[in-house]
Amino acid sequence: MAQLEDRTEALVDQIRNDRVHGATELAIMAIEGIQQAVVEAEAVDQTELRRQTQNLVADLATSRPSMVVLKNLLERLLRSFVDVKTDDFQELLRHSCVDLLLFVQDARTRAIKNMVGLIGRRDVVMTHSISSTVRNVFLELKHVDAHNHVIVTESRPGDEGKMLAEFLAEIRVQTTYITEAQIDLWMPNADKVVVGADAVLADGSVINKCGTNLMALSARYHGIPFYVCAESFKQSANNDYELETMDPSELNLGIAGVNVSNTYFEEVPAELITEWIS
Amino acid sequence: MAQLEDRTEALVDQIRNDRVHGATELAIMAIEGIQQAVVEAEAVDQTELRRQTQNLVADLATSRPSMVVLKNLLERLLRSFVDVKTDDFQELLRHSCVDLLLFVQDARTRAIKNMVGLIGRRDVVMTHSISSTVRNVFLELKHVDAHNHVIVTESRPGDEGKMLAEFLAEIRVQTTYITEAQIDLWMPNADKVVVGADAVLADGSVINKCGTNLMALSARYHGIPFYVCAESFKQSANNDYELETMDPSELNLGIAGVNVSNTYFEEVPAELITEWIS
Repeated sequence: MAQLEDRTEALVDQIRNDRVHGATELAIMAIEGIQQAVVEAEAVDQTELRRQTQNLVADLATSRPSMVVLKNLLERLLRSFVDVKTDDFQELLRHSCVDLLLFVQDARTRAIKNMVGLIGRRDVVMTHSISSTVRNVFLELKHVDAHNHVIVTESRPGDEGKMLAEFLAEIRVQTTYITEAQIDLWMPNADKVVVGADAVLADGSVINKCGTNLMALSARYHGIPFYVCAESFKQSANNDYELETMDPSELNLGIAGVNVSNTYFEEVPAELITEWIS
Repeated sequence: MAQLEDRTEALVDQIRNDRVHGATELAIMAIEGIQQAVVEAEAVDQTELRRQTQNLVADLATSRPSMVVLKNLLERLLRSFVDVKTDDFQELLRHSCVDLLLFVQDARTRAIKNMVGLIGRRDVVMTHSISSTVRNVFLELKHVDAHNHVIVTESRPGDEGKMLAEFLAEIRVQTTYITEAQIDLWMPNADKVVVGADAVLADGSVINKCGTNLMALSARYHGIPFYVCAESFKQSANNDYELETMDPSELNLGIAGVNVSNTYFEEVPAELITEWIS
């Protein structure tokens, strides 16, 4: 049975060290990884395999403390098999994973469809950072032959805005790329702001990349609706949330005695959000 | 008389292409440059020298259309000699320049003193970009043995925040360096926001680096006073202002079909400013 435990560490490391994908992408990668590892494991003892799988799922669920959705979805996976009696645990687990991935896909499709319904075919839309849900909103708008103009922020220090600008250029959506500093300068040109979220807390506030609050404040100041497009499974049962702090060296400062802050996420108060679209 | 005209072009180019110094520094550099060029010019004909000097001052005054202070101070210089009868224009010009530099220094000293008077000796102060006036406020606070903590923004794309962080580290002021995106995350830690300005318009709004509006909106949201420290000569007689747009390549994007915006300055509405300190 060493096989599953061997793969466990690599999978947890992969999810823990990923700085490119959002919470939902990581959850999907985790679920697919669990499925593959378990199905391919040498199943000498179904009870032992179940025990090891439970540990793996629990480890993954807590590998990114600031990603509520990872925790939510993996706890859902755990519930789907933990008390089910079966002689073929591998088959049960495979079914659970497929069902969960379909559930994720369905929730995503609904959120995207609802968001697309609120965006005019020639609206100028501002967004911050990169959200795979929001990216798919722009893709869907393109499919319905819309002619939107998207204002994309650089999103330091990860520069996720570059990835989004590349994607938008590929699907031929008119795009303007700005520094975070120019958000308020460009806001009067926007019809709507649409951002994703890593989590939606119990009080309706959301967790998203730092800078989202500034965009929300600017949108409110200029009377521009501010939408959060995030699937239902991103909802948290409570308001607990740990803001991950990343390596300060990503800001390339290196001046002795100067404290460098590199927090990726912040809480956006519910009162600044026009509507949560799920 | 070719000598003054030869130097003219180099001086205008220097001021036009400088991306490091603020408007007041550039005005001082311009005044010192005019003084030196005229005093060292071969003074074969005082009338011709006066004519050439007038042209030089006028060229410099319009070399940075978005820098009101450069225009203000050079127009003041022009008025100081244009209708004064003298046989020694070089001496008159030298005096005018010295007087103007003293006037600038005096206005700056007063603005700094007034600002220092409003900052508590242990206040946490957030600032954006780099302003030589604000830098001198921190230096003066250090001289009076204050123990402030300064939160400095990176200030993309010029990264002026690095220069400010270096300066603050040198004079041993506790400093935290953040991305623009983290402004709202850190705002609750600040007691005051202090920024400089390139110009104060007739309606009380100010021109400063892009990102200042976001900081002002965040300050207002969290109930933090937002001060603009800028010398009296930065006041504009009207609300006309041209926002300089810089080379988009500074944002290092380079994706075909994506429009890159690189505007450095924006107008901060008077209603977001707690007080203009001059």
